[in-house]
Amino acid sequence: MTDHVDALVPFAPDRPKTRLSDTLSPAERRAFAGAMLSDVLAALAGAGFAPRLLTTEATGRDVSETVDDRPLTEAVNAARDVHGPAPESPLAVVMADLALATPRALARLRGRDDAGDRIAGVTIAPGRAGGTNALVVRHPEFRVDYHGASYLDHLRVARDIGASVREVDSRRLATDIDERADLAEVLISGEGAARDWLVDAGFELDTGDGRVSIARTG
Amino acid sequence: MTDHVDALVPFAPDRPKTRLSDTLSPAERRAFAGAMLSDVLAALAGAGFAPRLLTTEATGRDVSETVDDRPLTEAVNAARDVHGPAPESPLAVVMADLALATPRALARLRGRDDAGDRIAGVTIAPGRAGGTNALVVRHPEFRVDYHGASYLDHLRVARDIGASVREVDSRRLATDIDERADLAEVLISGEGAARDWLVDAGFELDTGDGRVSIARTG
Repeated sequence: MTDHVDALVPFAPDRPKTRLSDTLSPAERRAFAGAMLSDVLAALAGAGFAPRLLTTEATGRDVSETVDDRPLTEAVNAARDVHGPAPESPLAVVMADLALATPRALARLRGRDDAGDRIAGVTIAPGRAGGTNALVVRHPEFRVDYHGASYLDHLRVARDIGASVREVDSRRLATDIDERADLAEVLISGEGAARDWLVDAGFELDTGDGRVSIARTG
Repeated sequence: MTDHVDALVPFAPDRPKTRLSDTLSPAERRAFAGAMLSDVLAALAGAGFAPRLLTTEATGRDVSETVDDRPLTEAVNAARDVHGPAPESPLAVVMADLALATPRALARLRGRDDAGDRIAGVTIAPGRAGGTNALVVRHPEFRVDYHGASYLDHLRVARDIGASVREVDSRRLATDIDERADLAEVLISGEGAARDWLVDAGFELDTGDGRVSIARTG
């Protein structure tokens, strides 16, 4: 294990998972988002990262945190400026809703188990629909832009500043949990608090008609 | 490069991609499915596999093929019985609609670039919603079952017969192309004939409102 890499985890406890409004109450969405965050923080620590919350309001968690209520892109770039990423001082940014993340999947961000990879200026784990679910920045000029298809935007930014890019091809890091259908992924492949929360809340897989969906009982 | 591993690619040219009926005509679905198949076959060859079509009707392609019009599970298990997988004679089964597959992603199925992995009795690349998008069978008793959440079923089968399991955690292998929303993934991350086909057919990404979708022009 080399030195710990700082990992920012943006979190918005004041507006948790609005696209799950059809499935969970506001209080449930808060609790579920908190369970996913706990899983991400634990997996990061297990992968040798030093996680730090970048949160829109104080959480009271026993973890280093910066409170910044600006939109995601602005808050991350401000934290980036404070950190000053460099080849010897990388900064990771990992989304709080990666409920399938494991230490092993996150360790791949560090470039230690994809044989033959060099250390890139920017390492990106793309999400679905062109999202950027996790990245590691070493190039001092790279700034994030989370609007739209951020994965493509980040590739463009890297090209413009001459930063090399490495893609981490991970289903577990690509699967952010936004909508009802995503909850099935947590029940199938989750290994932590988020899966436990769903099970305790009465959710289960429904494979009755050959297609996989979720149902709530009890 | 070690010996080539046989890779079955199931294909159903008679009923191509019915869940894309809202977006593509029957002739277009046939052409697009064919382009995805070409990408998968090329990526398999690039990863050192010997691909073989398992098709519901003859395709006329310049590739070894077995015609079997039974449902997927039955046809794959029949081909499996002929092959007789064993530790020294593995058999891969790779879906024909993995339009993001690259040689590098598929090579991970062979257990050569996930550092520290042993050669498992069954290697599985899970798909979304519990699917099994690619697997490599070495255990002589393992049989497939593609109904429902096949990933969970395959884990259960492996446990029952005492086969070790390795998971290949790949977004590119997890992303099978079934529905309109999936076409955005091909435009974002595809590198072959399927992406070219969509572009030629007038599809493009639409990120106008911050969400990523597809539009068709021209």
